[in-house]
Amino acid sequence: MPYQCGLDAAVDVIDGKWKVLILWALHERPRRFGATRRELPGISEKVLAQQLREMEADLIVHREVYEDTAVPRVEYSLTELGRELHDALGPLGAWGNRRIRMLQELEESSLAG
Amino acid sequence: MPYQCGLDAAVDVIDGKWKVLILWALHERPRRFGATRRELPGISEKVLAQQLREMEADLIVHREVYEDTAVPRVEYSLTELGRELHDALGPLGAWGNRRIRMLQELEESSLAG
Repeated sequence: MPYQCGLDAAVDVIDGKWKVLILWALHERPRRFGATRRELPGISEKVLAQQLREMEADLIVHREVYEDTAVPRVEYSLTELGRELHDALGPLGAWGNRRIRMLQELEESSLAG
Repeated sequence: MPYQCGLDAAVDVIDGKWKVLILWALHERPRRFGATRRELPGISEKVLAQQLREMEADLIVHREVYEDTAVPRVEYSLTELGRELHDALGPLGAWGNRRIRMLQELEESSLAG
């Protein structure tokens, strides 16, 4: 865990394209595995299970098992650290949207050029 | 460039461990190649040149060539979009520092346990 700075420790947790989208899905409300998967078109069961395990180990996702039904139910939710990460990503998401608009404008002007 | 959301477009630009550190180094002030490299212990010339080229293509770094000396000087600086990205990463860096402290506390308590 030798991180050079806080950003190192953050980028390490959100590596890859799925974890940020999983954060978004679980931030809305706790979800079961299937419901989480439906929010992430294109993700396989194996990859989702792996990502959730990693996020749990990174202390940003909580896994709760409910035994009150014949078949135990498993629900995933964000920990406090996970919710804080979601909020900290807000400005970065806004910057990314500005970048998308800029790239679109460049594309349109090169087509019109 | 088909991004699902702003965060996709942002995480795509800061992939890998060096770009965030290059952003930090150039945010302080414009720097030449050698001076940039000295801020990044462990980076090779080849990798730094590649990262700078990608950041230039992503419109977050500007490369200026000065011809007023016998040997032209090349200087790298952040574009406005680059400075905005640096600022948007602030909250993420703060979150990462909180995570580092938390991991250290866990480590200390497990040693003391």
